[in-house]
Amino acid sequence: MPRYKLTIEYDGTPFAGWQIQAEGRTVQQRIAQALTAFCGEQATVHGAGRTDAGVHALGQVAHLELTRDWPERVVRDALNAHLRPDPIAIIEARRVPDDFDARFSASARHYRYRIANRRAPLVLDRDRAWQVARPLDHEAMGRAARTILGRHDFTTYRAAQCQAKSPVRTLDQLEVVRLGEEVRIHASARSFLHNQVRSLAGSLKLVGEGRWAEDELRSALDARDRSRCGALAPPCGLYLVSVDYARET
Amino acid sequence: MPRYKLTIEYDGTPFAGWQIQAEGRTVQQRIAQALTAFCGEQATVHGAGRTDAGVHALGQVAHLELTRDWPERVVRDALNAHLRPDPIAIIEARRVPDDFDARFSASARHYRYRIANRRAPLVLDRDRAWQVARPLDHEAMGRAARTILGRHDFTTYRAAQCQAKSPVRTLDQLEVVRLGEEVRIHASARSFLHNQVRSLAGSLKLVGEGRWAEDELRSALDARDRSRCGALAPPCGLYLVSVDYARET
Repeated sequence: MPRYKLTIEYDGTPFAGWQIQAEGRTVQQRIAQALTAFCGEQATVHGAGRTDAGVHALGQVAHLELTRDWPERVVRDALNAHLRPDPIAIIEARRVPDDFDARFSASARHYRYRIANRRAPLVLDRDRAWQVARPLDHEAMGRAARTILGRHDFTTYRAAQCQAKSPVRTLDQLEVVRLGEEVRIHASARSFLHNQVRSLAGSLKLVGEGRWAEDELRSALDARDRSRCGALAPPCGLYLVSVDYARET
Repeated sequence: MPRYKLTIEYDGTPFAGWQIQAEGRTVQQRIAQALTAFCGEQATVHGAGRTDAGVHALGQVAHLELTRDWPERVVRDALNAHLRPDPIAIIEARRVPDDFDARFSASARHYRYRIANRRAPLVLDRDRAWQVARPLDHEAMGRAARTILGRHDFTTYRAAQCQAKSPVRTLDQLEVVRLGEEVRIHASARSFLHNQVRSLAGSLKLVGEGRWAEDELRSALDARDRSRCGALAPPCGLYLVSVDYARET
C-alpha cells in the first residue's frame, strides 16, 4: 500500500497533545479525521514522537498508508482543507518506501525551547514562549548545558510517568543562545525521554537566574533523582522543530 | 505635569486599530481605560502614528501627562495589570521632558511587512503574516524597491481617504530580504501616508510573482494615480517596529 510521510506544523495551544486519547482533541486524531473526510480511509497516523498538551511543532513527522496512490500534493492540500480551522498544517506529503517508519527510522529529533526574558507580559508571543522576568545569564546557562552533553542516565530530567524502559539517552546538542530579549535553547538527540527538554529548560532557567550554581545541572543529573529537577518549564515554549532520517526519504 | 513616553507592543487582530473611534475596541481606548483604572486620571494618550485594524506593533510610542509623579515602573506594571487580558503590553514607561511629543518629535518610523511564502496554510503565524503561495522572487522585489527610494509624490501608494495634506514623502529604506520561507519588507521614513506600506507591499508582491515587471513599481509611482497601485496587502502582515526620536529621551 502506498505509504506517505507527512511533515506537520501545529500550534499546540488548543490540543491535548499529539496522541489520540479517550477525551480531548488531539493532533493525531484531527489528522485521522481529516483523512477520513478526504478519502474515506481509516488509516493510523504514526507520529515520530508524542508532544504534550500545549507543545508546538514546526516539523513533526508522521507516516500513514493509503490503499489508493494519490499524488503527494493532493494528499497535502486535501488534508489541509479538511483540517481547517484547526491550527494544523501539512507542510509536505511525500511517498516513501514501505519500510519508512516515522518513529523507528528517525535518527535525530530537534527541539527548541523559547524563553521571552522580559518584564512585560507577552502579546505577540502569547502561548508561544515562556515569559521569565528576571534577567537570565544565558552564558552561564550555556556553560551548564555543556556539562551534561553525551550519554547519561537522565532519570533526574524525565517525567515520573515516563514509559521508556531505559532512562539512558545521548544528548547530542544542548545550546543556549540569546536573540535580543529571547533566550533560546536548542536540544538534539536520537530520542528524548518524556518531559526531558522541559525538565532541562526549567533547570537551566534556574541557572540563568543565579538560583542554581552552574555545576548543579550536572550534579543533579548524577544524583539520578527526579526530585532534584527544577520546576518543569511550561509547554508553550517548546517546539518540535524537525526529525532527521538517516536515509534520504 | 509629569509626562511619560510609553513603548507599546500589541497584537492588532482583535482591535479596530489604534485610534479611538465611536464604535469598536481600539488600542488607544484600552490604554486610556487602563490608565483611569490605575490612577483615576483621564489623560489623552497621544500616539506616534495610527495603525489600522489588524496591524501589529512591536514598538508603538505614545505620550501622556499625569498629575502625579509616579515611578516609571509603577506606570508600566499598573497599566499592564489593567490591560489584561487584552493583547497589549507596555514594554517601557519613561519620564520625558514636557516638549516631547510622540508624534511630532519623531524623526523616523520603521515598519516591517511579513510575507509567508508557502503553500501550506499558516498555523503558528496565523494573523501574523500574509500567506502567499506562489514562489516570490525576492531579489526582483528588492531591485524594484530600490527604484522608488527617496522623495516622491506617493499618490499611487496611499489610501484614497488619506488625510495628509501633501502626498510627498521621503522613503529612506525599502528593503526586501528572504529568511527561509519568509519574505520580509523593511520600510523606513520620517513619516508615512495612510496605507503606504501596505500599498507598497501589495505591489511588490506582484513584482515577486512576476505579474509586474520590475520597473512597474516606479512607473506606477510616476503616474501619481491610485488606480495603478496593486491590491492592498492585508493588515495582518504589517508591524510598526519602532519610532526614532532625534534627541535621546
